[in-house]
Amino acid sequence: MTEETTHRRSGGRAARQAARAHAHAQTVPFLTRKLAPFEVLSEEGLATIEANADTLLAEVGLEFLDDHALATFREAGADVTGTRVRFPRGMCRQIVQASAPRQFTQYARNPERNVQIGGDATVFAPAYGSPFVRDLDGGRRYGTIEDFRNFVKLAYSHPHMHHSGGTVCEPVNLPVNKRHFDMVEAHLRYSDKAFMGSVTRPDRAQDTVDMARIVFGAGFMEDHPVILSLCNANSPLVWDSLMLGAARTYAEANQAVLLTPFILAGAMAPVTAAATVTQTLAEALGGMAYVQLVRPGAPVVFGSFASSISMQSGAPTFGTPEPALVLYAMAALARRLGVPFRSGGSLCGSKIPDAQAAYESAATLQPTVLAGVNFVLHAAGWLEGGLTMGYEKFILDADQCGMMGTFVNGIDMSENGQAMDTLLTNGPSNHYLGTAHTLANFETAFYRSDIADNNSFEQWLDEGSLDAPARANRIWKKMLDEYQQPAMDEGTSEALAEYITRRKAEFPDSDT
Amino acid sequence: MTEETTHRRSGGRAARQAARAHAHAQTVPFLTRKLAPFEVLSEEGLATIEANADTLLAEVGLEFLDDHALATFREAGADVTGTRVRFPRGMCRQIVQASAPRQFTQYARNPERNVQIGGDATVFAPAYGSPFVRDLDGGRRYGTIEDFRNFVKLAYSHPHMHHSGGTVCEPVNLPVNKRHFDMVEAHLRYSDKAFMGSVTRPDRAQDTVDMARIVFGAGFMEDHPVILSLCNANSPLVWDSLMLGAARTYAEANQAVLLTPFILAGAMAPVTAAATVTQTLAEALGGMAYVQLVRPGAPVVFGSFASSISMQSGAPTFGTPEPALVLYAMAALARRLGVPFRSGGSLCGSKIPDAQAAYESAATLQPTVLAGVNFVLHAAGWLEGGLTMGYEKFILDADQCGMMGTFVNGIDMSENGQAMDTLLTNGPSNHYLGTAHTLANFETAFYRSDIADNNSFEQWLDEGSLDAPARANRIWKKMLDEYQQPAMDEGTSEALAEYITRRKAEFPDSDT
Repeated sequence: MTEETTHRRSGGRAARQAARAHAHAQTVPFLTRKLAPFEVLSEEGLATIEANADTLLAEVGLEFLDDHALATFREAGADVTGTRVRFPRGMCRQIVQASAPRQFTQYARNPERNVQIGGDATVFAPAYGSPFVRDLDGGRRYGTIEDFRNFVKLAYSHPHMHHSGGTVCEPVNLPVNKRHFDMVEAHLRYSDKAFMGSVTRPDRAQDTVDMARIVFGAGFMEDHPVILSLCNANSPLVWDSLMLGAARTYAEANQAVLLTPFILAGAMAPVTAAATVTQTLAEALGGMAYVQLVRPGAPVVFGSFASSISMQSGAPTFGTPEPALVLYAMAALARRLGVPFRSGGSLCGSKIPDAQAAYESAATLQPTVLAGVNFVLHAAGWLEGGLTMGYEKFILDADQCGMMGTFVNGIDMSENGQAMDTLLTNGPSNHYLGTAHTLANFETAFYRSDIADNNSFEQWLDEGSLDAPARANRIWKKMLDEYQQPAMDEGTSEALAEYITRRKAEFPDSDT
Repeated sequence: MTEETTHRRSGGRAARQAARAHAHAQTVPFLTRKLAPFEVLSEEGLATIEANADTLLAEVGLEFLDDHALATFREAGADVTGTRVRFPRGMCRQIVQASAPRQFTQYARNPERNVQIGGDATVFAPAYGSPFVRDLDGGRRYGTIEDFRNFVKLAYSHPHMHHSGGTVCEPVNLPVNKRHFDMVEAHLRYSDKAFMGSVTRPDRAQDTVDMARIVFGAGFMEDHPVILSLCNANSPLVWDSLMLGAARTYAEANQAVLLTPFILAGAMAPVTAAATVTQTLAEALGGMAYVQLVRPGAPVVFGSFASSISMQSGAPTFGTPEPALVLYAMAALARRLGVPFRSGGSLCGSKIPDAQAAYESAATLQPTVLAGVNFVLHAAGWLEGGLTMGYEKFILDADQCGMMGTFVNGIDMSENGQAMDTLLTNGPSNHYLGTAHTLANFETAFYRSDIADNNSFEQWLDEGSLDAPARANRIWKKMLDEYQQPAMDEGTSEALAEYITRRKAEFPDSDT
């Protein structure tokens, strides 16, 4: 199904306009890659990494700061001493391969926006977790729930974002212990794309599940994952109780969990790529094995967030070549394991959407797609090492995601693609602008960027010499102006509001 | 040999400083790729393209607007009618494969900067051919010979540029019919890296050869290519006498020729990728076959410059996904043919070094490297579809080229790379910043960008909130300030000057 169809059925003036604006682009609910992934390690190299990860899991093991996890692993046959769990070689892999799905569907409120997680699918979701937001008009400031809703609306309206994401920015103007209600509500009300749940505490994960049950139905959710949530390891080699508790809550509800070692190599792992890959594999295996023991068959995603640091200042760095190598290797290891893989995005260290931001983002996003990443968090908006969510950056990145959608289709070798008729009849010296073949393929011939300015220098001058962020600024404002909320059944809407009001009244506001 | 060694032996304060600044980076005279290229077409798809190109060469053929070429092809057995040459299937391929070298060395004035053209080597050269230059201080203006010399000096000083390039900008302040003397002189005097010669007329190509003979010796050049020159087809399907004459001049002197169909798909070729690839292959085969007939064994490079156009305005567009697909396919076809391949670069349509420029450049440079391109013209400086050479853009792009140098080494699977000792002894929760392994790998652990700002937001504010071009502006000025000319034997220097003075006096200035 095309994005155009999706938009039309889901209604809304903005959606229809977006559909028309992007009718030329091959927009789809998620990408289906037709190209084999790029490989940076041989089979032998990958097997060596796997053996090293097994050695690490057996000899050093992982810390699980969670009683349920310790008891679970003890029962499953691991060597548990205090909070340290050591795994017989191959144990985690066997547990994961015994029951974790190779791929699954995450269901969206609009079924035409369901996304496939795994296999040859790639799903783009907005950046996640920044306390700050930035736009050209107001500069950098703390995020609010209004910003949060804006980014949900932008991701909903944008034809190249497949997913609503999670903490698209921190709504810092709301109390820490209640903001998850407003965040989850925003995803459920202002978008109909698939979304991510709260993971900051197990009870907040439970609220997410309960709110989703109001919208999707408890029965439906028993065998249809509608929530995908991000649980990070505390690298090196530690899983804490908050993350494990959230993961357990989701797994028990048969909702999907993304288990991601978050590693700045040189700080949370050794400085070399092979060692970072080994450690990431070991940590992710432990996390995924736990989820499979909690509920065999619950959907899990193997995550890897790896970047480098400046060896001078210790500052995180992005878009450098080493994390790209790590990403390619991790994706290959996830394929060998047979689970969906999350990594990459449009990462950068730049404070502003300048050339540094774009080079670094491209140096992350292209490996992301060529490696065959299945779920791409941080695909749009990321600035300043994740501290800031940028309005203009979101628009600029999403345009690049659109280009990836064309790229992954590869070269059309159909008769129309080969175009031998026109090649054999056009003749030397004659241009192709007006040939029947060109006219027949006019609409879909090339990806059309809404942001790139390809006009003459003189025309560009006449139009105010705008740079790319200035053009992106106009686009996000227009998208928000034209946004129309997707319809929600009135009873559902009221029940959701009632749940939030009731739960918020049950305990006092707090900023922890 | 490392770039550090190269710099030290070649002398010069600037070179030594550059060596120190980049001692951390693994800088080398050219990249040696350790990763297998990314493929977008199957063997079957590539064979279909080859068959289609043969059909095009047999049924439509190519126009050769050059009597020598027509006579040469007639003698070789092609069907020549007027200026149209039709080739029996497989003829061009057989001619090329019979004598064209799979790879060759282009010799530089400094032998430690000799570059390998072909095989697993990738060589970065500056952008080529722009009438305008741009810097942050003066904006956009016509290029002068001073700008030309500046870019030669920057390419000489930059550790990630392997080659001096050719028309690094048009020296518009010099007469058209004599500026080649000053351009070639600049490459010979102000750099000791390999360079490109004039191709605008056969006699200018001969001047290039004669000037190079003064510096390298006529005997040496008989079996050592020191000039690589760019001859473009007039797509679709035409080779003109100026380009063919220049190619013949270089081939007769056993100097290297790059034969490049320059195609904006939709205008000079059909809009589809497969057809653009077919036409490019046919045109390049014809050009390379001619050079091999002129002098069997003369080094040739298979070139492809392909981009797209805006179907609304007809303006050229860059960094879109379709040209990336074409690039990958062309590189695979060149490998099958068994000749070195030139394509890609840091192409963009943006007028300024903003996020558009960077995204588009990255969307060209990454495929360039992953496809295994051997000679990368336009690797640094390109703006505005090639109309402008940017000082800041040059610095920004060259930094990306440096990152590619790290990327192509792949993942180090040595014992030190695997780092099992440190993984097994560091333990959970403990950071790696001070481990023996980190300290031992401190210098070479990660690529260090001179341009990226990874400092805190507050520090960045304190330092003036500079964007990437503002930082690049400081770098190129510092490099020019610290530039020191590589030594040249006094007799050679005088002979070169005498040649130029004499030749310039032989005919009046003209702007055609």
